[in-house]
Amino acid sequence: MSAATDYDPYDFANRRHIGPSPKEIEEMLAAVGPSSLDALIDETVPAGIRQAAPLDWGPALSEQGVLHRIRQTAMKNKVLTSLIGQGYYGTVTPPAIQRNILENPAWYTAYTPYQPEISQGRLEALLNYQTMVCDLTGLDVANASLLDEATAAAEAMALCQRATKSKATAFFVDHHCHPQTIELIRTRAEPLGWDVIVGDPFADLDPARLFGALFQYPGTYGHIHDFTGPIASLHETGAFACVAADPLALTLLTPPGEMGADIAIGSTQRFGVPLGFGGPHAAYMAVKDALKRVMPGRIVGVSVDARGGRAYRLSLQTREQHIRREKATSNVCTAQALLAVMASMYAVFHGPVGLKAIAERIHRKTARLAKGLETLGFKVEPAEFFDTISVEAGALQGVILKAAEARGVNLRKIGATRIGISLDERTRREHTEAVLGAFGGEPTDIEYETRLPTALIRTSEYLTHPIFHMNRAEAEMTRYMRRLADRDLALDRAMIPLGSCTMKLNATAEMMPLSWPEFADIHPLAPADQTAGYTELIADLSEKLCAITGYDAFSMQPNSGAQGEYAGLLTIRAYHASRGDDRRKVCLIPTSAHGTNPASAQMAGMKVVVVKAAANGDIDIDDFRAKAEANADTLAACMITYPSTHGVFEETVRTVCEITHEHGGQVYLDGANLNALVGLARPGEIGSDVSHLNLHKTFCIPHGGGGPGMGPIGVKAHLTPFLPGRPGGAGRVSAAEYGSPSILVISWAYCLMMGGAGLTQATKLAILSANYIASRLASAYPILYSRNGRVAHECIVDTRVLKDSAGVSVDDVAKRLIDCGFHAPTMSWPVAGTLMIEPTESEPKAELDRFINAMLAIADEAKAIEEGRADPENNPLKRSPHTVEDLVGEWDRPYSREQACYPPGAFRVDKYWSPVNRVDNVYGDRNLVCSCPPVESYVDAAE
Amino acid sequence: MSAATDYDPYDFANRRHIGPSPKEIEEMLAAVGPSSLDALIDETVPAGIRQAAPLDWGPALSEQGVLHRIRQTAMKNKVLTSLIGQGYYGTVTPPAIQRNILENPAWYTAYTPYQPEISQGRLEALLNYQTMVCDLTGLDVANASLLDEATAAAEAMALCQRATKSKATAFFVDHHCHPQTIELIRTRAEPLGWDVIVGDPFADLDPARLFGALFQYPGTYGHIHDFTGPIASLHETGAFACVAADPLALTLLTPPGEMGADIAIGSTQRFGVPLGFGGPHAAYMAVKDALKRVMPGRIVGVSVDARGGRAYRLSLQTREQHIRREKATSNVCTAQALLAVMASMYAVFHGPVGLKAIAERIHRKTARLAKGLETLGFKVEPAEFFDTISVEAGALQGVILKAAEARGVNLRKIGATRIGISLDERTRREHTEAVLGAFGGEPTDIEYETRLPTALIRTSEYLTHPIFHMNRAEAEMTRYMRRLADRDLALDRAMIPLGSCTMKLNATAEMMPLSWPEFADIHPLAPADQTAGYTELIADLSEKLCAITGYDAFSMQPNSGAQGEYAGLLTIRAYHASRGDDRRKVCLIPTSAHGTNPASAQMAGMKVVVVKAAANGDIDIDDFRAKAEANADTLAACMITYPSTHGVFEETVRTVCEITHEHGGQVYLDGANLNALVGLARPGEIGSDVSHLNLHKTFCIPHGGGGPGMGPIGVKAHLTPFLPGRPGGAGRVSAAEYGSPSILVISWAYCLMMGGAGLTQATKLAILSANYIASRLASAYPILYSRNGRVAHECIVDTRVLKDSAGVSVDDVAKRLIDCGFHAPTMSWPVAGTLMIEPTESEPKAELDRFINAMLAIADEAKAIEEGRADPENNPLKRSPHTVEDLVGEWDRPYSREQACYPPGAFRVDKYWSPVNRVDNVYGDRNLVCSCPPVESYVDAAE
Repeated sequence: MSAATDYDPYDFANRRHIGPSPKEIEEMLAAVGPSSLDALIDETVPAGIRQAAPLDWGPALSEQGVLHRIRQTAMKNKVLTSLIGQGYYGTVTPPAIQRNILENPAWYTAYTPYQPEISQGRLEALLNYQTMVCDLTGLDVANASLLDEATAAAEAMALCQRATKSKATAFFVDHHCHPQTIELIRTRAEPLGWDVIVGDPFADLDPARLFGALFQYPGTYGHIHDFTGPIASLHETGAFACVAADPLALTLLTPPGEMGADIAIGSTQRFGVPLGFGGPHAAYMAVKDALKRVMPGRIVGVSVDARGGRAYRLSLQTREQHIRREKATSNVCTAQALLAVMASMYAVFHGPVGLKAIAERIHRKTARLAKGLETLGFKVEPAEFFDTISVEAGALQGVILKAAEARGVNLRKIGATRIGISLDERTRREHTEAVLGAFGGEPTDIEYETRLPTALIRTSEYLTHPIFHMNRAEAEMTRYMRRLADRDLALDRAMIPLGSCTMKLNATAEMMPLSWPEFADIHPLAPADQTAGYTELIADLSEKLCAITGYDAFSMQPNSGAQGEYAGLLTIRAYHASRGDDRRKVCLIPTSAHGTNPASAQMAGMKVVVVKAAANGDIDIDDFRAKAEANADTLAACMITYPSTHGVFEETVRTVCEITHEHGGQVYLDGANLNALVGLARPGEIGSDVSHLNLHKTFCIPHGGGGPGMGPIGVKAHLTPFLPGRPGGAGRVSAAEYGSPSILVISWAYCLMMGGAGLTQATKLAILSANYIASRLASAYPILYSRNGRVAHECIVDTRVLKDSAGVSVDDVAKRLIDCGFHAPTMSWPVAGTLMIEPTESEPKAELDRFINAMLAIADEAKAIEEGRADPENNPLKRSPHTVEDLVGEWDRPYSREQACYPPGAFRVDKYWSPVNRVDNVYGDRNLVCSCPPVESYVDAAE
Repeated sequence: MSAATDYDPYDFANRRHIGPSPKEIEEMLAAVGPSSLDALIDETVPAGIRQAAPLDWGPALSEQGVLHRIRQTAMKNKVLTSLIGQGYYGTVTPPAIQRNILENPAWYTAYTPYQPEISQGRLEALLNYQTMVCDLTGLDVANASLLDEATAAAEAMALCQRATKSKATAFFVDHHCHPQTIELIRTRAEPLGWDVIVGDPFADLDPARLFGALFQYPGTYGHIHDFTGPIASLHETGAFACVAADPLALTLLTPPGEMGADIAIGSTQRFGVPLGFGGPHAAYMAVKDALKRVMPGRIVGVSVDARGGRAYRLSLQTREQHIRREKATSNVCTAQALLAVMASMYAVFHGPVGLKAIAERIHRKTARLAKGLETLGFKVEPAEFFDTISVEAGALQGVILKAAEARGVNLRKIGATRIGISLDERTRREHTEAVLGAFGGEPTDIEYETRLPTALIRTSEYLTHPIFHMNRAEAEMTRYMRRLADRDLALDRAMIPLGSCTMKLNATAEMMPLSWPEFADIHPLAPADQTAGYTELIADLSEKLCAITGYDAFSMQPNSGAQGEYAGLLTIRAYHASRGDDRRKVCLIPTSAHGTNPASAQMAGMKVVVVKAAANGDIDIDDFRAKAEANADTLAACMITYPSTHGVFEETVRTVCEITHEHGGQVYLDGANLNALVGLARPGEIGSDVSHLNLHKTFCIPHGGGGPGMGPIGVKAHLTPFLPGRPGGAGRVSAAEYGSPSILVISWAYCLMMGGAGLTQATKLAILSANYIASRLASAYPILYSRNGRVAHECIVDTRVLKDSAGVSVDDVAKRLIDCGFHAPTMSWPVAGTLMIEPTESEPKAELDRFINAMLAIADEAKAIEEGRADPENNPLKRSPHTVEDLVGEWDRPYSREQACYPPGAFRVDKYWSPVNRVDNVYGDRNLVCSCPPVESYVDAAE
């Protein structure tokens, strides 16, 4: 009996993640040239950077083996009921939302909605989210979510500073803000030179010194104050008022907007998003209309398409970084889209009546518990509350906390003597009985009265839009989610060849543990002995990431790539400071760098100096050296991306690192392109000191339609003491200790399932696929950058040739690709007018060929224009994408319906139909990679 | 603070399942007439049958409460590794298939593909399944699955009997068939008067006596025999040969077809379908071409649509019952579609190389284990095997079984001294080490050789079709499943108003526990102390069903409605037999009865006497009494449906029961329409003695695109001792003790979440919704039957008026409804040329109105034909459904594209597009409710 040699059903390195079959690999190599995969890699990756030893941590586990392994780890987490609060609450994810959103690849594999035509579903869901936030807060404009409540608070501070006309440099923070919020505000303020004053808003507020202030509502210990007075006094001096508010409490209480607040922020976690040991959750921000153009984050807006129909799109993208450039005080370029969608669906499902009923139920339980505790002789604070109270326990604090834990309930330790209790949607009588029991009480009937502050009972309506008044039947809700999903094009229907975004397979087996209670239902502040599973997971993943990168330690705190950059630079800053080297503030950044790089540098208190590109797109080494020398005394760091954002393995990377080190700087290597390195080269061995990894790119966390992400940073040993949150290190950058820990299980599962050899093979295939596409497209489109005739894991194809010859823009190409059933590659970044294509290792050759055929057909269509066979304006490219509406109406075009709708690449029966025609871009902008500007825009300011 | 009075987010009786909101209920009542819901019910349901006490088993649980409760029960099942075999094996459900098929409402909420245009996706998946079965068995034609392996074996026996030309009356069964198969064959043969001979095929075969024989391959104890000789000897006398074969073994072994077998059957459970304590799983049947027209079950075939494109449909529907009528030996009218789809996707995913690798791996582990046991001194049988061996343990049997169990492994107890061991895809080395340990061995390296019988090594190819050679990447597989799902219209996109099928919401929370290992991974023959959770679930569900129906006991064995009928009649038969009343063979069945009723009666050895309908559609009481009197000595039973299949609460139901009892018969009340009774009336109190319930209709088990189903029977106390499988009772009717037990959790969750009051409210709403539709449609379509001007939970609308006035057929209406985004109601059953509409309680009023608007618009379109404003042939009705292909091509029709594609009811952006035009029905038949014929076809034969 012969064993199957070319196929092993349990070998996932040859299965789930690697698209091309062995036979297809041969065919692709034949098209590219090299005799073998290893020969291609040798031609492509410079020998000088290759790692010596293969990546190896034992054999790959089978899918079942991985699930078994993760199950063992999960069981080391203990699922107790946490009534700790502090911004994190138990919540019920409606099963219909769990199955049809969180566990549905149509939602979780979608990309950020930069291409609005194929994103109408999630844009509508996010618009619902924004509407919900505006209604609940009583403010005018909301964004489509931020990373977490503490980050949102820091963003609010920065927004106050840039919006104010005063010269004040201090920011006031309510002492009743959550501790992690205060800590993160301090982190953010320090490099920017702002003072943070923590105090009592009713005693310590000195508006003359302030550009803004933040109050918490209800406070972290449950107090509910009317901030109308403090807000008015802030406004008198031109300072802005921010309120961090619990959206569920706002269903019962006067909203911040009605108190005059300019900005509201908070977490929508308790709207159906699992605790997950701290994240991912969607934070919200809402502002008065006057502030909308300086608000950070994405905003979904309503526009029109080419037929005049309603269409959603991301609007107001020319804000913040675009306007402020060198003064950027935000590097936000993502959101928590998937979680915001879940929260919005929770609100759609429950509607205002349902949300209010949930809030009232929680309040009644809290009031009953408070009365019970008082009956036992304890002093409960505050007198009026929503869901949170605290009790003076004196010397009994430890005993009571332990007694509660023994009864399955975690309470909050406040100081040395107080105990905090926050109830939530999942609190059942057995839980409050357990609490009373821990305080020495017996189950009993308790007479109680509700204790909301009468003066602050909400009277205004909210969620009045019909979408929040859908019928409450699950049938209708399920169908609504299905309709929205069907409007969008995600990885579950087609490849998404986005350069720099690594839209690889998000394997189902990796996603499944996310829904297990042992990961989903853990409070971030649960006692350490209840979170041993998470600790093990994070330690093992860190170890593997160290093996992959050559770094010595990782911090999991940053919950986005840009946060990773920022955290990395703060780490470098703390390192220099520890050596008394405070002068080191200059950060060299090549023109080809991702746009968030300079923004992050600004936020870390650094001065950006831009390094030119050579003619071949590489970093201009002479310019680099010259600028390093010119700033030798003040050089803090350089930020490079490797392989470059031009999709090339530059030979000079080691030289760049050496120059930086020679002049006293540290090297920050942006890990965005790590998918081209894993198993082949280690940043930490090339000369880099710190990198962030985009786990949502290289390590299979799905993009979720625009978040979540994870951007942990790895550092060499000398930087380890300065990682965020360590004593003497950089400050905290995320609300939760480990950023968005629940999704780390995805990346861990990927590493376990692939093994070192599988990951290395994936890298090789990513490079092969990119070179295959480059080879096949080269006849029609110049490949902009290469080395030895080879590209790395992505390639920039120069569609400007079509502009020159036929007036066909890169937009036309992108929209025509929708007709072919594809999400466009990255447009106009890093080079305007081009497309950057990254196929990843996950795509079968058939899908690569379908894309190639589409691209070649588009070139042919441009040729027809060039040769006068097609009208320059009225042609399939200019009028793309085509919709069914086009077919139904009069057809007065010089090309046929058939040609319009079924270009090469398009499926026939299974064709994806864009729900709208081309969305009007007049109000938008062309920088569609990320909300950040091209790095060139920094040149003037920095030099 | 006021509590929300009209809305409780935790009250599922007012939430998940009940579509219309309180306000909508008022609006619907206004349209219907009665002043209140209770007034409507009083007008509709005869006072004489109403139950006195409300249905009550305590308050409804919240969704979370239900999941918590079920979790407690689940934990009483112990998940050990079962190596018991006997037709059930551990298997790995690929997570992508689990998430995207089993847990995806687009698949599980679909209806049987009787409307081929909106079922192309699942028809393709089932065609893949049939292809897989044909290839693996080496036979010509396969059906789209049967209920379980044992039922399939009984069907094979019946097929042999009706296909043979000989007068022989005996059927031979291999003594190495699985015990449950032998038992079920005995059950089936007895009423039909066939002898069953169990013996050794190589010693005991006497072909002259036989119309057929069944051999097991490999045998239940692991033996692998070449049946070529026995098969040839059977053929010499005109008898047929059946082989029950394990499809995974067939990847390595010579298939039955190559041995000359006429029929192969077996279970595809181990192709990725969880054990689930015995089901649901898909059994297969494949036959030689000559037998295809008499093969039971559904067969998917390839046809063409109106544009000549390829289209799938159910073919060969005019078989068996249609041909045999009074001699029907099968009542099969369903399949295990969802499970067959899963099994087919498993094969598509793994391909022939993957399946073979899995089989080889299992065999190697078995060979290693056998060698290890032999080394320990045990005698292993047989010498050559695939995955199953047995060991003579003598007096140690009990000790070893217990030792294995203590090590987490269940083995098979064979007789008093042997132990059986069957390995599977999930077997890891730790499991075989545990087995060796139980036999007294220590972990050690074992040298072994494989032991497949060299003479029977498969040489022929299989799964050569390209679909089984898809790229093995998960990306491609996921997209394939998505494409197929998108072609179909299921409950997740629109209501499915199928009369008699009760297509209600399948709530997500009810589905979730299905995936828990505590339910999914339990072997049906696991020791009782490991299945206490299932026992508790089944006991509690039975108790609730008793409360609902007024019966005294339930049997969960029947795994379809027709099996329930059959089991119920067998129970009656056993009851009469116990009283020495063997003459009682006549079964009175009204013309309006569901077509399976007479087929089941025939199979239970009864003689069908058809009772006429009165002019108003009710049972003709005079005719009923006359026929009862005429058959007073031989009356065994009557079979009625209540409310009637005409959708009416007949006043005379108690009289019918009384007449039956007066003449010595038992009343079988078909529970198909129980959705109109729950909480309002109990069959057991009306006079019925036995009913089956369709848990997949009334109790939320999803239809799965044509199965699974569950048809448990309830009986009054005097029949309890005669339930299937009880000593002295009816024989076994399903392979597993509890039919398809894993899906019982769905119905249980529904009962818990609704409570008695919620279930009663659901019934009222089902009746209101049907009356609302009847009231609104009455202006355009006569409502065929009613009582007091009210219908029950469904109504028959007479579309024949359109035929008379405009030549528009019921088919035209059904297909035009596809353009409107609806699955057609039940067509031409129980009255030819009409539509039977059952909206269920789950649909919001908006969806009911969308459907009503569509139906009224269709009447308008017919009016246009009648009035000469539209062409009699070239109009939107006759040419429906319209596809995008229609729009793309030339448009030479007298109506507009707009009119074609966007009739009232159709969504604009979110329109469902049929992937094919009208499928050619020439080869088909018009009885599209179920494969069974209208009951009228029995009249001639029985009288």
